[in-house]
Amino acid sequence: MDTRPIGIFDSGVGGLTVAKEIYARFPHLSTVYVGDTARVPYGNRSQDAIIAFSSQIIDFLLTQSVKAIIIACSTSSALALAALKQKYDLPIYGVLEPAAISACIQTKNKKVGVIGTRATIQSQQFSQIINSVDSNISIATKACPLFVPLIEEGMTEGEIPISIAHYYLDSFKKEHIDTLIMGCTHYPILQPIISSVLGRNIELINPGIALCESLTKDPLFSTNAVNQQSSHKWFVTDNPDQFSLVARTFMNSASAINTQKITLF
Amino acid sequence: MDTRPIGIFDSGVGGLTVAKEIYARFPHLSTVYVGDTARVPYGNRSQDAIIAFSSQIIDFLLTQSVKAIIIACSTSSALALAALKQKYDLPIYGVLEPAAISACIQTKNKKVGVIGTRATIQSQQFSQIINSVDSNISIATKACPLFVPLIEEGMTEGEIPISIAHYYLDSFKKEHIDTLIMGCTHYPILQPIISSVLGRNIELINPGIALCESLTKDPLFSTNAVNQQSSHKWFVTDNPDQFSLVARTFMNSASAINTQKITLF
Repeated sequence: MDTRPIGIFDSGVGGLTVAKEIYARFPHLSTVYVGDTARVPYGNRSQDAIIAFSSQIIDFLLTQSVKAIIIACSTSSALALAALKQKYDLPIYGVLEPAAISACIQTKNKKVGVIGTRATIQSQQFSQIINSVDSNISIATKACPLFVPLIEEGMTEGEIPISIAHYYLDSFKKEHIDTLIMGCTHYPILQPIISSVLGRNIELINPGIALCESLTKDPLFSTNAVNQQSSHKWFVTDNPDQFSLVARTFMNSASAINTQKITLF
Repeated sequence: MDTRPIGIFDSGVGGLTVAKEIYARFPHLSTVYVGDTARVPYGNRSQDAIIAFSSQIIDFLLTQSVKAIIIACSTSSALALAALKQKYDLPIYGVLEPAAISACIQTKNKKVGVIGTRATIQSQQFSQIINSVDSNISIATKACPLFVPLIEEGMTEGEIPISIAHYYLDSFKKEHIDTLIMGCTHYPILQPIISSVLGRNIELINPGIALCESLTKDPLFSTNAVNQQSSHKWFVTDNPDQFSLVARTFMNSASAINTQKITLF
């Protein structure tokens, strides 16, 4: 039985939407989470920067004896996954492919929308994966670079996020999409607003949920060891107390979350 | 005659509001600008992180033989200036003190407002400087953390920045301030909106202009060498092409701006 933890990383708190699903679906698994809060957000950075930052995080996770890595950051999954898989000799999972495949299964009218950071949308990774599965699916994309700062500020309800959501999402109405990929792990935190702006007949794909569904048959995530005691650790590159506070609220945790600060550079 | 350049740095493009004033007021001076675009924004980071990032930039500027440093970033001026002055043996100028002193001179009713990043406002540096000059001045402060992402996105006009400006600034109306310090070097880019929301009877203090006024009698910025040929260099830690584009637009430059990428970490 391989009891080593799974490494999970993101630029900041967004990856907690993925971690939350992992904790719920695979309660026997131990995990080590890294949030690169000293350099968040990744969404407007270059591919070189994102590969360099992600490598520094993986080098740290390897010191924690992880058996696999989940990139719980859509931008890093889009721009760095291929390079990281070549560089490292352990299983690395991104969040793009599961979300894209889930959208292909979900759409009935073969019209899919994708929202994400500027870097993710410019990479066209979602479109390439979707059309490699089904070339008849048409795809409308939109970069929504203000969503991450809104979420990091905790402005997830009220007039301002609603008007920003209209600004970014109204153009999807004339595309007649029936499925939208929330292509940044921060975005599920805005799901109520996204849903109210687009209307409830559009299916929203949450990358964390899609990833967990794709992992249910993976031996590394095996549920055989259901009695095994799991443990979770959280590390950030800046402001551990603020992260602990956000994480506890976000995960409705009854107990305090102990986050440690690490220096990667 | 000391023809060595002046080093200017910021987290990103915001410091160009300061650099623009330096170029105009001291046309004989050569400068080297660094924008830490791989780690922008600084406004929510810890003091430790801001001192570490600023030190890495100054170490680079020293390789460029600068004779003095201007911290064209209000957050770094607020949180790192004292530590950097202790650490380095060359003149270092921040933007807080000149802006604070300018507000003290400007206010007639002795009610001053200050806006800035969360880190700058929490540091209370502006309030301390203002009250050390005149303890009778009352100060109202507000952190405006969405202004930097708006400016970085180029969203400087229209409904969304206006509604966000109302969200942050309306509370100043009941404070009856007559002077507002735009306490982040990004903010002068939003000056038309800030002015329209607050009303034109409130004087806005631009940190770059206040700094230049304070430097006119400084020997290092002497205007004696008016015929001297000056040169300007720009370095960033990520996305040099994007920076060049923004910088050229922002400074209404007829010629292309050549920005080089450097790696600090």
